[in-house]
Amino acid sequence: MTAAVDPDRSEWDVIVLGGAAAGENAAQYASQFSGLSSVLVENSLLGGECSYWACMPSKALLRPVEVVDAAAHLSGISTRLDPAEVLARRDRVINGLDDTSQVTWALNNAIDVVRGHGRLAGERTIAVSRADGSTRTLTARHAVVIDTGSCPAVPDVPGLREALPWTSRDVTTMREVPRRVVILGGGVVACEAATWLRGLGAAEVTIVHRGERLLARNEPFAGALVGAELKEEGVRLQTGRSMSHVQRSDARDTGQGHVHGGEVRVTLDDGTVIVADEVVVATGRTPNTDDIGLETIGLSPGGYLDVDDHQCVRGATGTWLYAIGDVCGRALLTHMGKYQARIAGEVIAARADGSADLPSAAAGHIGLPQVIFTTPEVGSAGSTEQQAREAGIDVEVVEYDLGALAGTYVMRADYRGRAKLVIDRANDLVVGATFVGAGIAELVHSATTAIVGRVPLSTLWHVVPSYPTASEIWLRLLETVRSQRHAANGG
Amino acid sequence: MTAAVDPDRSEWDVIVLGGAAAGENAAQYASQFSGLSSVLVENSLLGGECSYWACMPSKALLRPVEVVDAAAHLSGISTRLDPAEVLARRDRVINGLDDTSQVTWALNNAIDVVRGHGRLAGERTIAVSRADGSTRTLTARHAVVIDTGSCPAVPDVPGLREALPWTSRDVTTMREVPRRVVILGGGVVACEAATWLRGLGAAEVTIVHRGERLLARNEPFAGALVGAELKEEGVRLQTGRSMSHVQRSDARDTGQGHVHGGEVRVTLDDGTVIVADEVVVATGRTPNTDDIGLETIGLSPGGYLDVDDHQCVRGATGTWLYAIGDVCGRALLTHMGKYQARIAGEVIAARADGSADLPSAAAGHIGLPQVIFTTPEVGSAGSTEQQAREAGIDVEVVEYDLGALAGTYVMRADYRGRAKLVIDRANDLVVGATFVGAGIAELVHSATTAIVGRVPLSTLWHVVPSYPTASEIWLRLLETVRSQRHAANGG
Repeated sequence: MTAAVDPDRSEWDVIVLGGAAAGENAAQYASQFSGLSSVLVENSLLGGECSYWACMPSKALLRPVEVVDAAAHLSGISTRLDPAEVLARRDRVINGLDDTSQVTWALNNAIDVVRGHGRLAGERTIAVSRADGSTRTLTARHAVVIDTGSCPAVPDVPGLREALPWTSRDVTTMREVPRRVVILGGGVVACEAATWLRGLGAAEVTIVHRGERLLARNEPFAGALVGAELKEEGVRLQTGRSMSHVQRSDARDTGQGHVHGGEVRVTLDDGTVIVADEVVVATGRTPNTDDIGLETIGLSPGGYLDVDDHQCVRGATGTWLYAIGDVCGRALLTHMGKYQARIAGEVIAARADGSADLPSAAAGHIGLPQVIFTTPEVGSAGSTEQQAREAGIDVEVVEYDLGALAGTYVMRADYRGRAKLVIDRANDLVVGATFVGAGIAELVHSATTAIVGRVPLSTLWHVVPSYPTASEIWLRLLETVRSQRHAANGG
Repeated sequence: MTAAVDPDRSEWDVIVLGGAAAGENAAQYASQFSGLSSVLVENSLLGGECSYWACMPSKALLRPVEVVDAAAHLSGISTRLDPAEVLARRDRVINGLDDTSQVTWALNNAIDVVRGHGRLAGERTIAVSRADGSTRTLTARHAVVIDTGSCPAVPDVPGLREALPWTSRDVTTMREVPRRVVILGGGVVACEAATWLRGLGAAEVTIVHRGERLLARNEPFAGALVGAELKEEGVRLQTGRSMSHVQRSDARDTGQGHVHGGEVRVTLDDGTVIVADEVVVATGRTPNTDDIGLETIGLSPGGYLDVDDHQCVRGATGTWLYAIGDVCGRALLTHMGKYQARIAGEVIAARADGSADLPSAAAGHIGLPQVIFTTPEVGSAGSTEQQAREAGIDVEVVEYDLGALAGTYVMRADYRGRAKLVIDRANDLVVGATFVGAGIAELVHSATTAIVGRVPLSTLWHVVPSYPTASEIWLRLLETVRSQRHAANGG
């Protein structure tokens, strides 16, 4: 389908290859104040992974689990959860995998949409292979923006591919909750999926993770607290373990969605055998750059695209090729992709206008916020202690028990959580913050503001937290810094 | 009772008159790094209003109502609320009105506690009247800090006092939920109490408020949204109305807590008669300065105490008298009182040390955060548009629908809320922010950080909100500012 676009048109100012959330933003920002024309080339659903198979459905599954958990830690509320109703709401959140509303949004914003698999075919040129086998060639006057995203990486475990494992897409769009699930991986997708699968009633959930730490990109206490909660909820953690082989007798790809055959036997490296109904692979992502024609412009397919702070692809001639989102490998997070998109769009508009004043994505990347919607939630911004030390910063750290606050005590008497600031001592600036606990998702933005805004600790001291909220953790962390410094000065 | 303090001791470096949350902080901050000795003089419970009759019990009553509301707006969760269990948890949160843990905290921090009604008796002198009728005189070497707080103001409505109305203390510590309640007032206490009374099962709740707007100190849409929700929940709003007279046939003060007699008839100025089981008075506060001996040092009793930015009381001789919390009338909020306490404590310690480098509370007060735990919540920081205009600022405002975000849509499909920024155009700074909606309590701290940290909009543009959270409102507000400015510049 080509949605309301002149089928003979072959030239736009800006072509965006990949119409996911970031791509939409790039087109919008390039054109909204500049008058540049733009087109999105998309082979699947407009809105992409985030809208249909990642952030949105996962949050729709996790939110009821979060609310039931909140009630369970209060006195006087009893709850009953109906998983079928939750899945039905998830379907509404993802519009039943129908992207009509996104197409309407694009057209209303004067952004054209061309369906098909687009590939670079030389400078500023995109060849679109359509479903009917025909090809259409588009030319960009000013810029091509690549936002083709990433796909799940399936590791080379004997029998795993043949067992037709679920990926993140399958576990977010599942039609019913499997009784027994093995999850391979220990990162965000693995931990979130374990949370909703168990919360929605899966009887046996096992995480198999080759590392010892869950959520290893975060401060160590994040994975420790999430792991402890998963265990208490009955999730089995097989950390420091890998899969030796996987066996599924009647695996078959019916082409009918999620029918993946009968039970699956997973054998671990220590000989443990786990029998399950589904295996979920959550071991990282691979950029979708292997089949987008990079070779036609002298770039190597298959890897991440190296970009400068204007999101311009290094190695391409001139300044016509941009990349945003997962394909850059800078931060595989929807909001960072969208941020890169806003910068790229503005840069394209500025260059078209002959302006030398080009926006840069450098400042935004030091904030790097993320919320992991596990139980407890993990929110972070900026660098971990380890990252800051590796960057050569003179690091001062402070931690505090998030449960030791009035604002969290009123949420639940048995609140468990922890917070940490990573401080650049020489400049008296926060460069990293991590909050682990219930209800901390919105607290992250205060840290991102402090980090990107370079608000010194001497000023943060006057940023009063409202009482009683979890924000009071800021006061306790800053008080602890003072006590530490006082003690270090001979107290 | 005098807790573990030498009964003959008569001199401390610092005397704090009133051992509420702020007073405790003042003593702590004055002494913790300086070695100054300090004593709290308190006639009631250590920890004060906030711990036992305000923030803590109200939040304990409101949190379950919030969680039930969150569940009601999702599919697949059914809930049942047991008000008796909620009241029992409230009792645990306020420690059954036992302040032993707070006394232990004080003593562990080398802060002494003297029980009794303290009054100034000349410069640096406090006379304490004890329960046994005796008097003890305390002298401060360096400073006296007044933190005697405020009490509910009961308006002069014929028959109202005689009807023994509930105050905020009674409605937070109620033993059972009355069936029919009339609340007089339209501010924070009135709106929060209506929320928990109705949420916990009161069949008939009526708010009588002489103004047209609820929460009149906030942006107008705050009271409008809260009022609309209260109405939908079945609370009757009688705005623009006052009470003509109140009648309760068998009102009697039994001295046994909350037995206030039989039903009460409230007649409004338009003749409407409301029959209820209890009347709650929530029409503002009066500072507790009428009986603390201010006249002995040449100050007038009964009013707010005027302080400078070091919390030093203006009009007293020298720099020995400080005031913090509600008695200053600057911001009747626990966290602002505690902030003033930290400043006062540090100033006292610095002056005792002969330092001329004195901390100031000026910066903190521009942040002025507040969260009102109604349904929806109201969070604000800094100035309202009206306050900013009255302060002579060249104001630019922007509003956005909090329900039009992915981060709020996943919370509830029918999310209702609104956000507003008040911008100082000349300096490109946020000076005020208001968020009204479910789950925005922790979002306020990002605004306080931006305001106090004086982070310009050009930098806030690079403070990326995590997706999908309500924090994304920042992006939408900033985008709207750009669009407004673009349109103003001729588009």
